[in-house]
Amino acid sequence: MATLLGARENGLLAVWGVPMDFTASWRPGSRFAFDAIRLVSTSLELYSPYFDRSLEDVSYEDAGDAELLWGDVQGSLDLIKEQAEKIMEKEKKLISVGGDHLVTYPLVQATKKFYPDLAVIHFDAHTDLRQSFLGSKFSHATVLRMVADEIGSKSVAQIGIRSGVLEEFKWGTENTHFFPDHKWDLVPATAEVIKIFKSRPVYITLDIDVLDPAYAPGTGTPEPGGCTSKELFQALHLILENLNVIGTDIVEIAPDYDPSERTAFMGAKIIREMLLGMSK
Amino acid sequence: MATLLGARENGLLAVWGVPMDFTASWRPGSRFAFDAIRLVSTSLELYSPYFDRSLEDVSYEDAGDAELLWGDVQGSLDLIKEQAEKIMEKEKKLISVGGDHLVTYPLVQATKKFYPDLAVIHFDAHTDLRQSFLGSKFSHATVLRMVADEIGSKSVAQIGIRSGVLEEFKWGTENTHFFPDHKWDLVPATAEVIKIFKSRPVYITLDIDVLDPAYAPGTGTPEPGGCTSKELFQALHLILENLNVIGTDIVEIAPDYDPSERTAFMGAKIIREMLLGMSK
Amino acid sequence: MATLLGARENGLLAVWGVPMDFTASWRPGSRFAFDAIRLVSTSLELYSPYFDRSLEDVSYEDAGDAELLWGDVQGSLDLIKEQAEKIMEKEKKLISVGGDHLVTYPLVQATKKFYPDLAVIHFDAHTDLRQSFLGSKFSHATVLRMVADEIGSKSVAQIGIRSGVLEEFKWGTENTHFFPDHKWDLVPATAEVIKIFKSRPVYITLDIDVLDPAYAPGTGTPEPGGCTSKELFQALHLILENLNVIGTDIVEIAPDYDPSERTAFMGAKIIREMLLGMSK
Amino acid sequence: MATLLGARENGLLAVWGVPMDFTASWRPGSRFAFDAIRLVSTSLELYSPYFDRSLEDVSYEDAGDAELLWGDVQGSLDLIKEQAEKIMEKEKKLISVGGDHLVTYPLVQATKKFYPDLAVIHFDAHTDLRQSFLGSKFSHATVLRMVADEIGSKSVAQIGIRSGVLEEFKWGTENTHFFPDHKWDLVPATAEVIKIFKSRPVYITLDIDVLDPAYAPGTGTPEPGGCTSKELFQALHLILENLNVIGTDIVEIAPDYDPSERTAFMGAKIIREMLLGMSK
Amino acid sequence: MATLLGARENGLLAVWGVPMDFTASWRPGSRFAFDAIRLVSTSLELYSPYFDRSLEDVSYEDAGDAELLWGDVQGSLDLIKEQAEKIMEKEKKLISVGGDHLVTYPLVQATKKFYPDLAVIHFDAHTDLRQSFLGSKFSHATVLRMVADEIGSKSVAQIGIRSGVLEEFKWGTENTHFFPDHKWDLVPATAEVIKIFKSRPVYITLDIDVLDPAYAPGTGTPEPGGCTSKELFQALHLILENLNVIGTDIVEIAPDYDPSERTAFMGAKIIREMLLGMSK
Amino acid sequence: MATLLGARENGLLAVWGVPMDFTASWRPGSRFAFDAIRLVSTSLELYSPYFDRSLEDVSYEDAGDAELLWGDVQGSLDLIKEQAEKIMEKEKKLISVGGDHLVTYPLVQATKKFYPDLAVIHFDAHTDLRQSFLGSKFSHATVLRMVADEIGSKSVAQIGIRSGVLEEFKWGTENTHFFPDHKWDLVPATAEVIKIFKSRPVYITLDIDVLDPAYAPGTGTPEPGGCTSKELFQALHLILENLNVIGTDIVEIAPDYDPSERTAFMGAKIIREMLLGMSK
Repeated sequence: MATLLGARENGLLAVWGVPMDFTASWRPGSRFAFDAIRLVSTSLELYSPYFDRSLEDVSYEDAGDAELLWGDVQGSLDLIKEQAEKIMEKEKKLISVGGDHLVTYPLVQATKKFYPDLAVIHFDAHTDLRQSFLGSKFSHATVLRMVADEIGSKSVAQIGIRSGVLEEFKWGTENTHFFPDHKWDLVPATAEVIKIFKSRPVYITLDIDVLDPAYAPGTGTPEPGGCTSKELFQALHLILENLNVIGTDIVEIAPDYDPSERTAFMGAKIIREMLLGMSK
Repeated sequence: MATLLGARENGLLAVWGVPMDFTASWRPGSRFAFDAIRLVSTSLELYSPYFDRSLEDVSYEDAGDAELLWGDVQGSLDLIKEQAEKIMEKEKKLISVGGDHLVTYPLVQATKKFYPDLAVIHFDAHTDLRQSFLGSKFSHATVLRMVADEIGSKSVAQIGIRSGVLEEFKWGTENTHFFPDHKWDLVPATAEVIKIFKSRPVYITLDIDVLDPAYAPGTGTPEPGGCTSKELFQALHLILENLNVIGTDIVEIAPDYDPSERTAFMGAKIIREMLLGMSK
Repeated sequence: MATLLGARENGLLAVWGVPMDFTASWRPGSRFAFDAIRLVSTSLELYSPYFDRSLEDVSYEDAGDAELLWGDVQGSLDLIKEQAEKIMEKEKKLISVGGDHLVTYPLVQATKKFYPDLAVIHFDAHTDLRQSFLGSKFSHATVLRMVADEIGSKSVAQIGIRSGVLEEFKWGTENTHFFPDHKWDLVPATAEVIKIFKSRPVYITLDIDVLDPAYAPGTGTPEPGGCTSKELFQALHLILENLNVIGTDIVEIAPDYDPSERTAFMGAKIIREMLLGMSK
Repeated sequence: MATLLGARENGLLAVWGVPMDFTASWRPGSRFAFDAIRLVSTSLELYSPYFDRSLEDVSYEDAGDAELLWGDVQGSLDLIKEQAEKIMEKEKKLISVGGDHLVTYPLVQATKKFYPDLAVIHFDAHTDLRQSFLGSKFSHATVLRMVADEIGSKSVAQIGIRSGVLEEFKWGTENTHFFPDHKWDLVPATAEVIKIFKSRPVYITLDIDVLDPAYAPGTGTPEPGGCTSKELFQALHLILENLNVIGTDIVEIAPDYDPSERTAFMGAKIIREMLLGMSK
Repeated sequence: MATLLGARENGLLAVWGVPMDFTASWRPGSRFAFDAIRLVSTSLELYSPYFDRSLEDVSYEDAGDAELLWGDVQGSLDLIKEQAEKIMEKEKKLISVGGDHLVTYPLVQATKKFYPDLAVIHFDAHTDLRQSFLGSKFSHATVLRMVADEIGSKSVAQIGIRSGVLEEFKWGTENTHFFPDHKWDLVPATAEVIKIFKSRPVYITLDIDVLDPAYAPGTGTPEPGGCTSKELFQALHLILENLNVIGTDIVEIAPDYDPSERTAFMGAKIIREMLLGMSK
Repeated sequence: MATLLGARENGLLAVWGVPMDFTASWRPGSRFAFDAIRLVSTSLELYSPYFDRSLEDVSYEDAGDAELLWGDVQGSLDLIKEQAEKIMEKEKKLISVGGDHLVTYPLVQATKKFYPDLAVIHFDAHTDLRQSFLGSKFSHATVLRMVADEIGSKSVAQIGIRSGVLEEFKWGTENTHFFPDHKWDLVPATAEVIKIFKSRPVYITLDIDVLDPAYAPGTGTPEPGGCTSKELFQALHLILENLNVIGTDIVEIAPDYDPSERTAFMGAKIIREMLLGMSK
């Protein structure tokens, strides 16, 4: 009966699970992410030395898991969007835990309904900018392209990207904020993003594989060459302290590939920081 | 560049992979089954002391893997059926390696085209007789019901079943050959099946979880209370020696949950026996 | 937010966790047993083909986990006893999930308060009959001796035992029901127990290592030479169908040593059968 | 500073490690067997309920590990033979822990020096009767053929064999005691062996993969279809109680493939029984 | 029969194990640390390129493992203190291998007897400054507070701390040397410590989780955001070269969570450097 | 039927496996490296953002695996040399995947035949400069000394070295390019190498353990204190962009010790960069 970080009911923030991973092209299993995070979160302190504040002072709830239509991609995306909107209608800010990266699409759609001026900051190893992948438009590999189509490519910033096809890199460089001068340096790229999205409502979508797999081995595609846990925390804190973050997701944690459970623990810690940063 | 058991090209038998596992409701990963089997098969002898014959005397090929439409269940099922038919048109008997159990449906459809009088012998821990599952008609939990609808429930025999909902057990008992007196004893149930399907073309669909998870830990749903490896070999040999087996599949091997690799090794060994038994 | 097998609140049966494993002398980690069981239980059918009944027709609750005084053995044992009594005072039958075997002692004490004529059936690889172990009276290795002292050694039957010191085997043979003629055959020993404890309220304490480690690798001391899953189910069903079982525990599942999760799955399945058998 | 089972120095029996695994053709790692066995043996009781005797009453030593010439097969075999002889010269019976199966060859050579009338009982999944393997005469796959050449094929009995090439099965059936009527039933084959080797000095060579990989997953080639732990113990006890066992080895435990450590535990338990049975 | 790094007897330095982990609140298993370190240490070179010296020139012994009263916290702490004193009475400097962090308390008590002016340098992810934890005063979470009470809080320096409750951070900042300006930068904080403890006898207590779990996944609570292996070596060498280190411990290595064994290997390497640095 | 990165036949570059690991002194298993790399490489993009080029524009083949004489070190080394020469005779540049480090010796010998002025850049945690190891001249621990003898020690540069015996460090410092001022900083040492080997044909031998085990846990000897994945990529790109690389190998990946598969993935990514950098 593990609940996340001692969550109370009826909070102003909600964390929920969106355990849909059926478009994962290599290693599935991110469906198990939030349950693993809930379990290990019993060992995480509620106090954050980064924010010098404790979750005890934050009101939030663990809103359970999204219902899905198993094996039905389009139907499940519609359901996720609908359920996310219902939670946000109660004036709650939402932290969503994937699932694979495709879940970001309905989540951004739902968020846009409440924040039409939405900007998205995308941390990832992969561009996710394909127009279709393995015969499908709806995929973890196309999701940021769909998001860009939804909110405008200049409302998207992409940080940490180190994998994709030529066309994606080209399209990203020309269309989104792509930071080719800070390819694999999260903090300077993040500093630029702060200036760009100042005063706008911001949604963070965080693919755990932006971290080097040394720091997050439990993921679908462990892409060497990524950032450290310290760099990621620094970048996230820069955003949470300087921008108006109104929604976040964290995706692609596949706990079964990590017997040390540190990827799930990292997920729990990131969520703690998000809860603190979004509750200012 | 592992190929299965030293397969040659242009054989009269073909083994191929059908790595579709997107409807797995608990642990996915059977998409990795055939690659794992190919790798470990380098350590399996070609000679079978059960049949006292060697694969060196059998002509078969490793036909690669089915193409799929990633995340598109219906489209993928159609593709599997189409590709299976193409292989069988060359007068080949087909051994298919899943993937989850849903792949059996298009495989039986394709086989039926060439053998309209087909009978199916189903080894499994689970009935797989639901009419729909988690909102979907097409599922690893409904597949035998779909097969029964396709070829007639009296052309289906189910062996080893020890899990399902009440309605499934009721429907199975009333409609398929279900052997309630030999619930968990494979060999006597198999002996009865031999009499029933004598003289008909037979398709074996083998869910690896018919074995107790002690013998096959690398699977989606490890259901305790199953049979031993010896019992399974005995039952399979009874069928392969006494019936006209014209097609088989082996599904639900999820190798990432088995660091000993013995589930994949078991898969390789079962395929060797199937190749020998189908090449008489 | 996994709950066991879709438990409802306010049932007549209660399942709770007693995650105390500080006296484990070799591999600890049974503290994680019930959380692992809760998680995997989402994949277990509520219907039992053994009983031909479904948990949907049984009223029971997941009563959470016992509070413990971390590192304080005696204090924790007192707390467990007290909390168990409180649950039983509401006229509930209790299924407890350890933790190591020592938790059985306060659980039997609490049960005895409500059923003074209590008999205990003990399934285990180990005698657990030492008088002290590694300098301590309170230990997973002494617990059955303490139970025997509490309720009388002739109210204790021990089945499956295959490890201990000479003195334990001697004491067991002379004092408890020890079945030296059916040393490692569960079913005939169980058949004898049925006759002995007929008409008495019965408590089952089940150490998962009574199973051969092939069937339950996730445990503190994997003792080869044990029974199969089928034998254990057969023995349990004999008791549940023929005796008045008013309390049970299942101990020593250490899930971190079993990447296949089948030991936890076995635990969930045993609890399902216990729930059904105790709710007649 | 783990020592095996609390061994004392200067015993009449010696257990030593022969961690040579460089001819392993698939998964190496049996070099780690004895260290793993030593470690887990701290959790094994010294008392055996099978023999109703305790190791406390047996005088034996842990003689450490053989020195090897790393990467030099012939040189290492010579060294093993020489060192084994030195131990046996002190009138000690030797239990050797591999390493891969090739180590049996120099061990049998050394034993023959002291017991010219030696008979060998071979438990294994594989015939190991090739004349050469992968270009080499000295291999874990040829070792029993070399042993047969050394002591005469009629002094060799092979039990549990279920894998090999046609020629090996043919040669075994015609030359050694091969028991084709009890192919995979250890106990009846063992009963026959007792009669054959009555009154001769007997050496047992036990490849752990005679067990089904359910019972011994930590091994080089996990060959499904083997015996259970109970059957193996029964067969070993038949021999140890009825024959004059003057030397034994246990080979092919590769502990890194078994996170449950039960294969090493099985090894420790077999060694305990061997020590007791050889010290009558 | 693995011994640490080829240790000789009767050295001036001693390394011993203190395998007490019964107050671990999340993942236990540090009891297995020293045995794992001993085993992997056979693969570590005795020569250190950091010190440009070899252990062959250092006289030290592997003093075995502390005796404990299993499950009895207070009794075990007393025993550890007593045994540590006995070793130090022979004018030996002691390196202790936990166990969980609580073992540091009796070790510091024993050391204080010989070095009343003792200062403690504490590397850790966690403050360990609670006054009680989960109902107990004696806990891995209170140990540094107890140490501070024992030797004076200004004799304690804490480096690398990134987790705790608000009160602990407050108390640490106000009482110990806490280095809030170098929160997660080990080397500058260590440089300050050198100045502070110059000329005093120094005891280092090193919780392996000061490292990011990328570098030490085998630990009880893998706390992301830590330092790298290079930073830790740099900090340790600064101290070992510039201060008078008269005692050390290394705690919280739980090897079973790290199939790569690199956490144990790191432990062995740290001990090698400690031996060299303490033997100047 | 996994092939590396979609390799075509008849390319100007060839990648092949040399799965010889019989001289591994601690953990063997690098024989499985290339098969693991082939499998995971299906998930690696062909496009490299580092080079801004795609493998689709490079012509190369997967040349399969070297034949070996199992257990025969000298015979296998001869065979490797012979086979490597045969591939290079077709005017192909060769990328070899070990296997343990010893395979570099015959590979350098073969390369020298075509490029007599060869220089070798050696990335490793270990010096590998012993004159003999565990009784053998041919060993993964002596291989660079043999290479130095073959091409002259001043044609060898060693980078990242952090383990060895005193004599090795002394000999390396005096004879090869050893960079004692940049002991553990890959990039500055690499920058110096560029100047030294400008205009010569260069062979890179890369032992994966030059990386810290955080980044490459799947290796024989996980030596803490190494570089990050970013540093390694930076160093490799410096060389590939500035020198004339005519041959490479990557050795000591032992995938079975890394359940996250990231070490194999790292191997695949390094090979992709090598293919791109060698095909200019």
